[in-house]
Amino acid sequence: MRLLALICFSLLTHVAHSGELPGCPGNVGIGDRGLIIERATGSVVIVNSSRQEVLCRVEGLGDLSHASIVFSRDEQFAFVFGRDGGLSKIDVLNGRLETRVIQSGNAIGGAISQDGKVIAVSNYTPGGVRLFSTDNLQPLATVAAKTKSFPEGSKVVGLVDAPDNKMLFSLFDAGEIWQISLNNPTSPEVTKFEQVGRQPYDGLISPDGRYYMAGLFGEDGIALLDLWYPERGIQIILPDYGKGDEKLPVYKMPHLEGWAFADDHAFLPAVGRNQLLVASKGVWQLAHKIPLHGQPVFAMARPDARQIWVNFAFPENKWLQVVDTKAMKVVKKIEAGPGVMHMEFTPRGEHIWVSVRDESKVKVYDTATFALIKTLEVKSPSGIFFTARAHKIGL
Amino acid sequence: MRLLALICFSLLTHVAHSGELPGCPGNVGIGDRGLIIERATGSVVIVNSSRQEVLCRVEGLGDLSHASIVFSRDEQFAFVFGRDGGLSKIDVLNGRLETRVIQSGNAIGGAISQDGKVIAVSNYTPGGVRLFSTDNLQPLATVAAKTKSFPEGSKVVGLVDAPDNKMLFSLFDAGEIWQISLNNPTSPEVTKFEQVGRQPYDGLISPDGRYYMAGLFGEDGIALLDLWYPERGIQIILPDYGKGDEKLPVYKMPHLEGWAFADDHAFLPAVGRNQLLVASKGVWQLAHKIPLHGQPVFAMARPDARQIWVNFAFPENKWLQVVDTKAMKVVKKIEAGPGVMHMEFTPRGEHIWVSVRDESKVKVYDTATFALIKTLEVKSPSGIFFTARAHKIGL
Repeated sequence: MRLLALICFSLLTHVAHSGELPGCPGNVGIGDRGLIIERATGSVVIVNSSRQEVLCRVEGLGDLSHASIVFSRDEQFAFVFGRDGGLSKIDVLNGRLETRVIQSGNAIGGAISQDGKVIAVSNYTPGGVRLFSTDNLQPLATVAAKTKSFPEGSKVVGLVDAPDNKMLFSLFDAGEIWQISLNNPTSPEVTKFEQVGRQPYDGLISPDGRYYMAGLFGEDGIALLDLWYPERGIQIILPDYGKGDEKLPVYKMPHLEGWAFADDHAFLPAVGRNQLLVASKGVWQLAHKIPLHGQPVFAMARPDARQIWVNFAFPENKWLQVVDTKAMKVVKKIEAGPGVMHMEFTPRGEHIWVSVRDESKVKVYDTATFALIKTLEVKSPSGIFFTARAHKIGL
Repeated sequence: MRLLALICFSLLTHVAHSGELPGCPGNVGIGDRGLIIERATGSVVIVNSSRQEVLCRVEGLGDLSHASIVFSRDEQFAFVFGRDGGLSKIDVLNGRLETRVIQSGNAIGGAISQDGKVIAVSNYTPGGVRLFSTDNLQPLATVAAKTKSFPEGSKVVGLVDAPDNKMLFSLFDAGEIWQISLNNPTSPEVTKFEQVGRQPYDGLISPDGRYYMAGLFGEDGIALLDLWYPERGIQIILPDYGKGDEKLPVYKMPHLEGWAFADDHAFLPAVGRNQLLVASKGVWQLAHKIPLHGQPVFAMARPDARQIWVNFAFPENKWLQVVDTKAMKVVKKIEAGPGVMHMEFTPRGEHIWVSVRDESKVKVYDTATFALIKTLEVKSPSGIFFTARAHKIGL
């Protein structure tokens, strides 16, 4: 019996290994795998972060510009949200496309519920949120983002999961923040916060699931909802955060997912300015401004909060800078290559993976020494997502 | 070829399914698995936390009183530290014992390095730390805890991993804290902090890897090392934390692993008193005392920091209490059953698993409603360890 099992293992491994890449063998732990979006070719590669290796490629995923990914609670399945409304379920263990649906005309990201049963997608056209079963991507419900002032439905942005099996999102056109409770996912309960500010363009939830924040495109400031005190409603914080009266040339609005929470501070990429802003947590007042090389896009905290890694908008998008949170200043500048799009830390923070789109490379740096330890071939890479995200609130 | 693969899968599945339990099938994601120590029988069961199910049992692990577990970075392997110096490597995917060594006469826990290459074990007899390769459990080095005052070697406690591929531990007899750097694991670099206080009996590191703290058995107070400022050396904080002058009857010294960090506070089980102590983070001054039903052993924070779940020493060890961190008071008391030993939250916090030793049951509660949602049969269960720990500093 044992011999037969061994023979079978060899055969199965061989099946999985076909193609030029080593392949995605089943029957291994995949806590150290990840997916990298190849935006130009509608594909993803599955990688191993322990050996820093590309394992296999999954194709046929449609338009992946601005794509993002969430994971099932067992980590086996990745749900890829495409720009064209495509929602794809990928088997990360065996490296294959499991199911794919086109769920809207134009979408922007999604989330997975705390209980792992519901995938939600944030849609522009038609504006709203659609809910699907993680098992088979069968539709469960649609929450149309229709308001009195936008009866045709508002574009939805900044969709995140929250504790107690809830999700939050922002209505760009209507200027509202909605919360849905997913305990009955075919009939989600909606709570609305109105008049939160003009044109929320992106949102995030703090890693503890307490603060939901939406950046505003139509005015300065940030709309904040403290989920510990929802009865207090929306508060506008950091009133100088935005484009300001000078109407600065903004090359790219910073991603709010890239806000870094470290110790008692939040580190935020300034809008249109070469600065990293530091705000005190809870009080939400500006404490420091750290000068940077260009306009920041993502500012991401190493898991131990000792460093913030920052990338930049065009024309400075070949650079990375590392801010030391103890010294509150830049301690390292790295020329990573043309078109740095995204960064992802390994779960315990010893490495950072950086996608360099225009060079079709992903570069892995040691965060203690800043040494480049590996360069991988990936076609026009953008977002990088490791499976450990499965276990985090808001990711 | 596909048919052959299918037949092989069925056979392999059958191999794994032998016995009365459903078995631990390979070729699935195991981000939602966990291990539960069966202390009386020297075994562990492997469970699935999504379906709340016992999958399979692994036996032959020796004396598992006070046993603990860490995981490889791919989550496939669990390293079990037994009381008798046994170190066992378990394949969590396929549900089998991979390797087992007896590495000392008497041991107390261990850790895995940030780079995932080194397992360290904390030993009483002979006192010190031994390092092993995660691949095959081959010995790499021994750090004997010998000091001028304890030339025969001190008992070692409170061993944890830290950022930058370091580990920290405390010398019970000698009253010292040592840090080892594991970049060259056959010759680890040791940094010593002397005269940290009398008889450190347990240690922890804060979830961000910044603060190492050792509880003191021989005097009151806590020895604190701020790893952002190691040059400041050891500071004694919370000088009233301990048994005090009254020499209270202490039924069980609280576990420091059970300190909960939530928001800007640390929640600590008081020693010998029916209280949960609340200290401000950073300043480390006592802010509140929350009355409890008995002497607390573990105080564990739900991942979103909204609740602290507490269990108790004999004779009150059938109870659980839940503290609301917003209200700073007990909001729920649950009679879980005789001999509550340990608790573990699912990674995003919707459930808590509780081991009830004297009833040979593990009970799963919904943390939003406090409803008991599942009861599992596990022989004299103690520690519960989910695979998501693989991705956390200090666990």
